[in-house]
Amino acid sequence: MSALPNMGDPNGTPVVHGGDLSAVRQRFPDAPSPWLDLSTGINPMPYPVPDLPPETWSRLPTREQNDALIAAAARRYGVRDPATIVAAPGTQALIQAIPRLVPRSRVAVVGPTYEEHQVCWRRQGHDVAVVSSLDEAGDAEVVVLVNPDNPTGRLVPVEALPPRPRLLVVDEAFIDLSPSEASLAGRLPPRTVVLRSFGKTYGLAGLRLGFAVANPDLAFSLRDELGPWAVSGPALEIGRTALADNAWLDAASRRLQADRHQLDEILKDAGFTIVGGTSLFCLAEHPEASSMIDRLGRGGLHVRHFPHWPSRMRFGLPGDATAFARLRTALDTR
Amino acid sequence: MSALPNMGDPNGTPVVHGGDLSAVRQRFPDAPSPWLDLSTGINPMPYPVPDLPPETWSRLPTREQNDALIAAAARRYGVRDPATIVAAPGTQALIQAIPRLVPRSRVAVVGPTYEEHQVCWRRQGHDVAVVSSLDEAGDAEVVVLVNPDNPTGRLVPVEALPPRPRLLVVDEAFIDLSPSEASLAGRLPPRTVVLRSFGKTYGLAGLRLGFAVANPDLAFSLRDELGPWAVSGPALEIGRTALADNAWLDAASRRLQADRHQLDEILKDAGFTIVGGTSLFCLAEHPEASSMIDRLGRGGLHVRHFPHWPSRMRFGLPGDATAFARLRTALDTR
Repeated sequence: MSALPNMGDPNGTPVVHGGDLSAVRQRFPDAPSPWLDLSTGINPMPYPVPDLPPETWSRLPTREQNDALIAAAARRYGVRDPATIVAAPGTQALIQAIPRLVPRSRVAVVGPTYEEHQVCWRRQGHDVAVVSSLDEAGDAEVVVLVNPDNPTGRLVPVEALPPRPRLLVVDEAFIDLSPSEASLAGRLPPRTVVLRSFGKTYGLAGLRLGFAVANPDLAFSLRDELGPWAVSGPALEIGRTALADNAWLDAASRRLQADRHQLDEILKDAGFTIVGGTSLFCLAEHPEASSMIDRLGRGGLHVRHFPHWPSRMRFGLPGDATAFARLRTALDTR
Repeated sequence: MSALPNMGDPNGTPVVHGGDLSAVRQRFPDAPSPWLDLSTGINPMPYPVPDLPPETWSRLPTREQNDALIAAAARRYGVRDPATIVAAPGTQALIQAIPRLVPRSRVAVVGPTYEEHQVCWRRQGHDVAVVSSLDEAGDAEVVVLVNPDNPTGRLVPVEALPPRPRLLVVDEAFIDLSPSEASLAGRLPPRTVVLRSFGKTYGLAGLRLGFAVANPDLAFSLRDELGPWAVSGPALEIGRTALADNAWLDAASRRLQADRHQLDEILKDAGFTIVGGTSLFCLAEHPEASSMIDRLGRGGLHVRHFPHWPSRMRFGLPGDATAFARLRTALDTR
């Protein structure tokens, strides 16, 4: 369709994500059902969804609802000025939007990391390089850092962040349970945008809710780019309630820490070396990784692996004792 | 922030929409509460929200869920090729996205109509004219038609649509209860995109769900522009169920017709002339419109009025006998 030249390439390679069982189901048709999906970094013990007032579904989301969500997010993330927070239907929507708001730039993505960053900058015509560390970002005009990193868990201290590129994007999707001083959200430098995910820590990835913290001009443009009613009524309501619930977050944090420890022990017993991770996933290495992936697949367990790191796998947390036992059994080579 | 020149204008006049009571509450602080909001064209008797499986909230939306929603939409809208349907978190998200995919064009919006169309095309740098009829679109490269129109209800027969501009955008947000042959969705001409809203007819505007039907190239680009997991788990699940529920739609259609008739009678009794509308709202004229708006406001009723048509008001449907009685009382000048 030559009249519409800005179209994407229908033959482009789709980005592979965790959380989609279709491909693995085809590969292991005889695996026991239901599958145990450990391929994402989503808390398997979700925030309990409260009963929602009927208007949450029926009415257009209102300004008051949006303001109440933003106020809860500001308290939770330690942000003083609510005007610097933008709510979106998932951080992915922000990752799509930010590259549209920046003139064509040299972009350095510290990676390999969550692949959508480089894909979305490239799609908007930017000149993107994936660099292995901040030191190699050189004179890039835009620097993208996932912090802590996905999947390695590497956490760059805020003091080490690069001085003043045109724009610094810090994706803090997995920072919720790190010490609060690890985050840039509460002390935003100029020309910086911080992304915070709601669905991962709160275990509600289907809700679609995420936030940007950005200087007011960029925050305004992001709101404009997303348009009115971008966040659903249920997401406004559940997000507001959950972000204000410190007791739940404390309990979740303790439980995730214990579960992560248990996961590491199971993997070590099975011959894995733990090479990284966050409170929500573990990155582990195995000398016979591909046979371990087969073993897991035949047992109905889906984990994430990476073409560029063939010996590594990312394990999300099993949600309960049964799931832990299933993982242990599937990995048992005796 | 001179390094980021593509930013919007923070002093731009915001678009006024129905459905937000904040301003009218300030204007009529002594009005009885709760307000009766007749300012939108949303079915006040919503589709009953079913119990949702917990994974709807907790998991990332899957390809299977998306495919099932698209299949239900294809059946409902009479679309043969599911690849031509794109699901979005509300048609507004599509109205924001389409102007980004088209090279700078002369755009004719037939209006005045739903204001976001012209705003979104202008924001992307297009040269936009609002024209009063299709005949005046002249040699515009993009033509935007809301059909049936909001707020007039004017329905252009598909035979009268303009031949082959670069892109024809037909926003069929209010067409659900018109005869199916009024829609272009089931017989899409080249270079055309049809928008279908879910939230209005099904009374679930807070859910955020809408569809584009477009030629496969444009459909692909729209999907790419929205990115993965654009539609929430609850929207995928509820949309799939509701779009397949023909019995509910038949009953809703009968009820809306009766309610629209009752609304018209009340307005005529109060000295209004009915000048247009759809199954979900009525456009009416009154020689003393501004005093009627005051009267409604003091009674806690919010309706839509239009700066460019000072004598006209748009009334959404009251939801039940109490709401009808409240409208009748508020309008009673005896």
